[in-house]
Amino acid sequence: MRKLLIIGIGAGNPDFVTIQAIKALNRADVFFIPNKGAEKAELQQLRLEICERFIDDRDYRFVDVPMPKREAAGSDYLGVVRDWHERIEASYREALTRELDEDQCGAFLVWGDPGLYDSTIRIIDALRANGFALEYEVIPGISSIQALTASHRIPLNMIGEPVLITTGRKLAEGMPADIGTAVVMLDGEQTFARLAAEDLDIYWGAYLGAEGETIIAGKLAEVADEIAATRERLRQAHGWIMDTYLLRRPKSG
Amino acid sequence: MRKLLIIGIGAGNPDFVTIQAIKALNRADVFFIPNKGAEKAELQQLRLEICERFIDDRDYRFVDVPMPKREAAGSDYLGVVRDWHERIEASYREALTRELDEDQCGAFLVWGDPGLYDSTIRIIDALRANGFALEYEVIPGISSIQALTASHRIPLNMIGEPVLITTGRKLAEGMPADIGTAVVMLDGEQTFARLAAEDLDIYWGAYLGAEGETIIAGKLAEVADEIAATRERLRQAHGWIMDTYLLRRPKSG
Repeated sequence: MRKLLIIGIGAGNPDFVTIQAIKALNRADVFFIPNKGAEKAELQQLRLEICERFIDDRDYRFVDVPMPKREAAGSDYLGVVRDWHERIEASYREALTRELDEDQCGAFLVWGDPGLYDSTIRIIDALRANGFALEYEVIPGISSIQALTASHRIPLNMIGEPVLITTGRKLAEGMPADIGTAVVMLDGEQTFARLAAEDLDIYWGAYLGAEGETIIAGKLAEVADEIAATRERLRQAHGWIMDTYLLRRPKSG
Repeated sequence: MRKLLIIGIGAGNPDFVTIQAIKALNRADVFFIPNKGAEKAELQQLRLEICERFIDDRDYRFVDVPMPKREAAGSDYLGVVRDWHERIEASYREALTRELDEDQCGAFLVWGDPGLYDSTIRIIDALRANGFALEYEVIPGISSIQALTASHRIPLNMIGEPVLITTGRKLAEGMPADIGTAVVMLDGEQTFARLAAEDLDIYWGAYLGAEGETIIAGKLAEVADEIAATRERLRQAHGWIMDTYLLRRPKSG
């Protein structure tokens, strides 16, 4: 049966790669590289470098997988994402059928951790549920959340307290009153700026783990403008940006 | 100035160690090993094995750090933990003063990720705040949450949805109505059993990443008893147990 490895390669820093991931890299015959367009070219390049650096004397090849574009998400966010995932599934099916022989091992290299706001597991599950015979394994990787807290040298949680991992879209509804710590992912709208009236500390980071890593921390009301300006400057300079942040109520534990 | 590395070595599987962590292991002169008593002897042994396996030709030594016992936590959980941390701080201060020269590099090896329900960062911060001069770095590691989702081959979050990381103590108050996915840590009381009347899926794992890894998944109402019985059997056989689990509302995305 075809075999597939969904390998978390960590967020940003090639040194985040684990021994387990290196062993997995060295089992793969074919690396499937979803083509996400020019703005992510830097990230693509890092994927190739990771293979070159960590794979020993072994033949492997890269296969580009066309990635359908997502419709703009209006009110039906979930419906738009699901439709998009179905089209990705079709693209994956086509690439796997054509490029992976029955006795071969393929791999997807996932930025960060494959469990965290990444669709690869979900799409491979859907493929299997729709009758595509495939064995697969998931290899965890250092996520941007961990890169963020490590760079700021802060614990993720306060003593015995919960942590909410959420999205910019959800945070727009407000920081839940019973939550002392929230990590915000996928926020292209600088939603933190809307909460500047609340008594919150922010720990922000862009290009975490990578060469251009930039972090800012402080009272949200005092640094929100600086973060917004820095984010915009970096986005223009790089042509793309990946950032995440942690919000904490100062008295939360 | 004294230098300290807080190194996440991953949860359970020595292959979870990252290249960054290996480089950090190879910078340390002294490894400080908090002595947590007999029940954690297996984990202590794994720490030593990681050093042996990944440190190249270099002198290093281990220093046992006595760990004060925590008082039983009654109603004042936070107060008890804070008092306990103060006594740990005193023990760390004593060990660092005695065993780490001004130009040397020390290291703490933290199971999983140093940001997640671990007190090392907090205690080193307190030491510095109280005037102990020390430079330090934090190196992230694969957490038991990531080991759990990778072994079950599930995404941590549903599409665009938040995730709550919480404790058994907090879950005892109920699964928040607006939360579709919760990961529960530090639960010695099998709190999931109290929620068996709710429509939830559970993904449970013990000794994640390690040799004795055991995972069970299913409808909570159907597998709660099996998990409780398995947990008790494993705890008795090993003499200790570390487990964690994810709860998900089936229709949450």
